[in-house]
Amino acid sequence: MRLSQKYNIAFPALDRKIGDNNIIYFDSAATSLVPKRVADAVYNFDTKNKANVHRSSHLLGNESTEIMESTRETVKDFINANSTDEVIFTSGTTMSINTLANSFLNSELINDEQEILLTSVEHHANLVPWQQVTKNRNINLKFYEPKNGIIIIDELVELIDDKTKLVSITGQSNVTGQEIDITNLIKKIKEKNPNTFIHLDIAQLITHKKINAKDLGVDFLSFSAHKMFGPTGVGILWGRKDLLEAMPPFITGGEMIDQVSLEKTTFNILPFKFEAGTPNISSFTGFKEAINIIEEIGQENISKYIKELTDYALKEMRKVEGIEIYGPKNESHNSLISFNLGKIHPHDIAHMLNDLGGIGIRSGHHCAQPLMKQLGIRSSCRISFSIYNDIAEIDKFIKTLKKIKGWLS
Amino acid sequence: MRLSQKYNIAFPALDRKIGDNNIIYFDSAATSLVPKRVADAVYNFDTKNKANVHRSSHLLGNESTEIMESTRETVKDFINANSTDEVIFTSGTTMSINTLANSFLNSELINDEQEILLTSVEHHANLVPWQQVTKNRNINLKFYEPKNGIIIIDELVELIDDKTKLVSITGQSNVTGQEIDITNLIKKIKEKNPNTFIHLDIAQLITHKKINAKDLGVDFLSFSAHKMFGPTGVGILWGRKDLLEAMPPFITGGEMIDQVSLEKTTFNILPFKFEAGTPNISSFTGFKEAINIIEEIGQENISKYIKELTDYALKEMRKVEGIEIYGPKNESHNSLISFNLGKIHPHDIAHMLNDLGGIGIRSGHHCAQPLMKQLGIRSSCRISFSIYNDIAEIDKFIKTLKKIKGWLS
Repeated sequence: MRLSQKYNIAFPALDRKIGDNNIIYFDSAATSLVPKRVADAVYNFDTKNKANVHRSSHLLGNESTEIMESTRETVKDFINANSTDEVIFTSGTTMSINTLANSFLNSELINDEQEILLTSVEHHANLVPWQQVTKNRNINLKFYEPKNGIIIIDELVELIDDKTKLVSITGQSNVTGQEIDITNLIKKIKEKNPNTFIHLDIAQLITHKKINAKDLGVDFLSFSAHKMFGPTGVGILWGRKDLLEAMPPFITGGEMIDQVSLEKTTFNILPFKFEAGTPNISSFTGFKEAINIIEEIGQENISKYIKELTDYALKEMRKVEGIEIYGPKNESHNSLISFNLGKIHPHDIAHMLNDLGGIGIRSGHHCAQPLMKQLGIRSSCRISFSIYNDIAEIDKFIKTLKKIKGWLS
Repeated sequence: MRLSQKYNIAFPALDRKIGDNNIIYFDSAATSLVPKRVADAVYNFDTKNKANVHRSSHLLGNESTEIMESTRETVKDFINANSTDEVIFTSGTTMSINTLANSFLNSELINDEQEILLTSVEHHANLVPWQQVTKNRNINLKFYEPKNGIIIIDELVELIDDKTKLVSITGQSNVTGQEIDITNLIKKIKEKNPNTFIHLDIAQLITHKKINAKDLGVDFLSFSAHKMFGPTGVGILWGRKDLLEAMPPFITGGEMIDQVSLEKTTFNILPFKFEAGTPNISSFTGFKEAINIIEEIGQENISKYIKELTDYALKEMRKVEGIEIYGPKNESHNSLISFNLGKIHPHDIAHMLNDLGGIGIRSGHHCAQPLMKQLGIRSSCRISFSIYNDIAEIDKFIKTLKKIKGWLS
């Protein structure tokens, strides 16, 4: 039984068919399907409560504000942050990291002699913003380029020195599927240089890994609601309060100000300093419901379930002749698998899996061109798993993959 | 009959009661209520089609991409733009203006000797970003400060000279309710200096004023879906293609790139160059439906309807002793009315209107502190009208206002 069925979480999109095939959705690493409960929450809010938030003195406005702020409280508890002041709503992970890169690099937390360390496996969202802002600030950007894209913590820590002011790294690669031992990573970085700040991009990790910001000793976290059963257009930048307070705002406008004159502006307190303009108000009830669903099931149960699917798929895929599978060969490989099949173009495989089997997978460079280059490829296929997938779907995928191989190679 | 009823557009939130009172929503200038059709569209998309957009080769991904791009086409037609390349999706007006301010001021379209001209009546969203970015670029920011916040086009044009590279101005003030004659405004600015670019913040205007980007000869436009019956978390930056092409991107990450290496990044073509990361995918069907609704009714009909409500409210409000009404005294006053009542605090009035009459209004500085200062006040009440309001609601508002006055003054 699918984990989603066991917990009675309905995903209406799975009732659809593609031709004669039931839909098989293997693209959750790009965005997850929407649970009925989340869609219902958004619908109920939009048709009953929706008004603009803050500075309001009427019922709908108060309800909307309360829902926004109680969602912030829910997120705070979900990642065990110290305070809701540390929980910044953004439009998604990309915006979280753009905010962090700009605000951090324009603060006095870093000086021109210091450096930022990334890895070559990062999603473009955790690479391009740093590239652009360090270029403007004339600060050095350093890279850890692990062999085959497999991160080895000790190798990364080796590169940290007195100059390393911030490490920005993914908690799980969206290409290799490698889950980083973030507890160990943070411990070792802080041992090497206690003054190095750490930002984790946990967009791929948060659905199946319990994050405890306080215990981890991490400094910044970024993630999106839409990859964890929540609405699109909303994400989180979490940061330690003292650091966020030391950083200037990035996006400016209404709500984030204290006093505005034509000559100058002073800014609001946290978290509002980083939240300019009308937020994605309708997203908050859905985001909260998505977190409720994850907590009802438990991230450990989700991890165990998708790990079983991943291991089974890896075992069966390795039997397909001519397949090349990327990613670690150990236990750290979870939830997604990137591969190529002989010389067949990944887009052709993706198209045919859809047409022949109703199977939705992703093909392309997965917003990780430097890693693609390192792997010696331009693109790959990627399948990814969630609570609504099962073994039978993987069997059908393997069968269809073999059929495609027979036809095209 | 309410205009919304005439066109059979249901707004389910209006079925609610506050105590014994039917809800009266006079806060549409902050955000409009959600039509059932828009909520339905979002719900249907989320439960049937939702996947990630672009670079996808499976059914849900293709459907999601098609919906996004057909919404872009709808917006293009709605504002009569030349091309979908010019229609940039953002998270809202604030983000549109932050993007414009940063990208324009970091382009070669302006040099250090040139100036930006704003007015003192702008919403903070059209003021603070310019303040921050001109400060960083060391470019002069000039202000037109009209008496009582009432813009007189000839006075503004007077301030334009050879150095004025861009005028950024609201099409309708969210405090005074003054609708600017934008056709005349643009004509006169371009006559004075054909090299001056013009950005209009049309967040308040777009629901009831047909915008023809091509005919107007305007260079940039910003607006939000959520003030025009659409979803939250989505807005538009429209710009002339040649200008957008000459501007660097602002937010960076996935989707907006062409080639990424560890050393450098080249950027995607328009419109994608300005759209980093997963967009607010779920918003697009709702945005499209909102535009359909506006086009079914017609912006002229909406304008006529809310103008009747505005004129009636102004006439009746002027009879209330001790009231001070801000804004123009001529035909240009439309859709919203700001006022104070004697020495009663605006928040008290707002609270009591809600409690006694079920009437939702806004009170505060309306994200326009410089204008408040100019008007000699710290805050005001504001009522604003939409297609779902009617004369009987205004009568009840006036009656309740008088009651409050009797009690509190």
